[in-house]
Amino acid sequence: MDDRIRAHAETLVDWSARVDPGDEVVMRVAEGAHDLAVAVAAELGARGATLLATYGSDEVTRAYLRAHDDEFATPDAERALYEEADVYLSLGGGRNTTATADVPGERQGAYARAREDAREARMATDWVSTVHPTRSLAQAAGMSYEAYQDFVYDAVLRDWESLADEMGQLKDVLDAGSEVRLVTEDTDLTLSIENRTAVNSAASVAYDSHNLPSGEVFTAPADAEGHVTFDVPITVQGRRLRDARLVFEDGQVVDFSAAEGEDALAALLDTDAGARRLGELGVGMNRGITRPTDSVLFDEKMAGTVHLAIGRAYDACLPAGESGNESAVHTDLITRMDEGSRLLVDGEVIQRDGLFRWADGFES
Amino acid sequence: MDDRIRAHAETLVDWSARVDPGDEVVMRVAEGAHDLAVAVAAELGARGATLLATYGSDEVTRAYLRAHDDEFATPDAERALYEEADVYLSLGGGRNTTATADVPGERQGAYARAREDAREARMATDWVSTVHPTRSLAQAAGMSYEAYQDFVYDAVLRDWESLADEMGQLKDVLDAGSEVRLVTEDTDLTLSIENRTAVNSAASVAYDSHNLPSGEVFTAPADAEGHVTFDVPITVQGRRLRDARLVFEDGQVVDFSAAEGEDALAALLDTDAGARRLGELGVGMNRGITRPTDSVLFDEKMAGTVHLAIGRAYDACLPAGESGNESAVHTDLITRMDEGSRLLVDGEVIQRDGLFRWADGFES
Repeated sequence: MDDRIRAHAETLVDWSARVDPGDEVVMRVAEGAHDLAVAVAAELGARGATLLATYGSDEVTRAYLRAHDDEFATPDAERALYEEADVYLSLGGGRNTTATADVPGERQGAYARAREDAREARMATDWVSTVHPTRSLAQAAGMSYEAYQDFVYDAVLRDWESLADEMGQLKDVLDAGSEVRLVTEDTDLTLSIENRTAVNSAASVAYDSHNLPSGEVFTAPADAEGHVTFDVPITVQGRRLRDARLVFEDGQVVDFSAAEGEDALAALLDTDAGARRLGELGVGMNRGITRPTDSVLFDEKMAGTVHLAIGRAYDACLPAGESGNESAVHTDLITRMDEGSRLLVDGEVIQRDGLFRWADGFES
Repeated sequence: MDDRIRAHAETLVDWSARVDPGDEVVMRVAEGAHDLAVAVAAELGARGATLLATYGSDEVTRAYLRAHDDEFATPDAERALYEEADVYLSLGGGRNTTATADVPGERQGAYARAREDAREARMATDWVSTVHPTRSLAQAAGMSYEAYQDFVYDAVLRDWESLADEMGQLKDVLDAGSEVRLVTEDTDLTLSIENRTAVNSAASVAYDSHNLPSGEVFTAPADAEGHVTFDVPITVQGRRLRDARLVFEDGQVVDFSAAEGEDALAALLDTDAGARRLGELGVGMNRGITRPTDSVLFDEKMAGTVHLAIGRAYDACLPAGESGNESAVHTDLITRMDEGSRLLVDGEVIQRDGLFRWADGFES
């Protein structure tokens, strides 16, 4: 077995999920994630945790959903499983990223709604999502298998402790600040972050961070004014979206365009009222991620990028009792902060040309 | 997909497990059983059952157990899952029948004991075990993959309703009878079945039968007298056992021999006091199984064979409140009932030369 698979498993169990002896662990294994599952099982065994593995097969789900009608019963068994679990580890990595492409969206939605109680019980555990590099994911990224493996392990096998420290510096700035301004060649956007709390997403439940890899600091902005262009292409509802440009007034999108996928962007913005407002401002700080791979799990963490999500805000960023922007969607749009870019908090330059003010080479 | 996989899934869900709309189903998927899992998921979806798939990977289990010490916590999550489930479907079919060969037996035993509550909750569901034909199982059977697939589907895709009717006739004879005598060239054994109830094991929970394929009628005998030779080879604790011969007096083994594996037989008989007595008399009646494949699930159901199990008796065969033979083991030993053989109940010939008295060609 590739030593990096073992290191991935150890990072997941120790740094990310903080598994303790006696913890009850449910591990979801995607069709292509067998090797990582074997490595994680060894880590769990060594720590004296319990283990129940579930099979997260897209092909099984597709067959089930296509044969089912649109009325789903609420599964008590699945809910009961998660209610008794302390930790939930999702090992993604399928064999075909489009395995459920021929399942109607309404049916997928009805199925998700019927399992809402189970989902809530699962989210109440110390849950962590990660992915095992598969050929299917390499293909989706437009990469060879070997290069994609290198890519994933560069992203996952970081010195998380030191990255968490670095990200803590940005969190402190954002927590203390009231206003963020983003400037690039095609962007000049001002956002309020008054009374909002930033999350230091350091790929560990100890930081309220549930993805491995992670490596971003994010908060919930309000009152967007100005324009922003997203030069990292993404796929939205199966459609390519390139160079999306949004214009904001009073926090709301008043104009938009895209070099490709403008229809998909229009449909997204029309989902509901909250889909025209921002739910997240995130700053990618994972230097292991050096290129986009059309996977938001990785792309939004890329060092030297900032992302803004249209739609729902995360509760963790909001004052207790306050609900932020609400929407059925949360779609991350990403822009590069390279040569000529600035990120300012309350007028002070925090990042210039992609370099933070605490980095070597930063020009104040 | 091979049409036989769909037919297998339909037989499992309809005939065997009797899945109803709204039933909560847990489906265990072995490493090599993916295709059957997809077919079963479609059947469950069509019936409006819920579905949670678990991953029954021997390699995951091996990694977990080898890393663990000998003290296992009792898993509440797994127990809770089965307690809420109505149906449990185990889809066997691994990729290596010896995948856990390097896990110490004591550790496997300790793990099983810690999960006893979960096992009981699982056995309280309408559970059914079946296997998907894999290359690994073909290899264990000494067969090509294609021939093994034919073999499995011949065994599974029976006219179960008509076989259940035929087996019902034997059950009636055994329920009414007091004494069974088995005679072959190397066997003359007399057993008491007074007050015992035979099980018509017709591969359906409606018949208290939990294996697909099944196709046997079995009961719990007592007071064995005489000798018996088992000419179908089996593997006991990893050792080949060929032409085992047992001599019984007062229900107990007083002498034994084997052409191969006599040591393993001796160890088996020495397990505990109950290991020298019989727990089961079974009559194989599945005509789709025409050859042994070193898998007890199939071999003991083979038409034209009788098996006797050393060790533990099944409660279903015993009068209420009575406990039959008790032992930590239950090992089936199989003998052919071909040319020259007789099976008698209370002195009446029920089977001669492998033919039952209700079959064409039976000579009374």
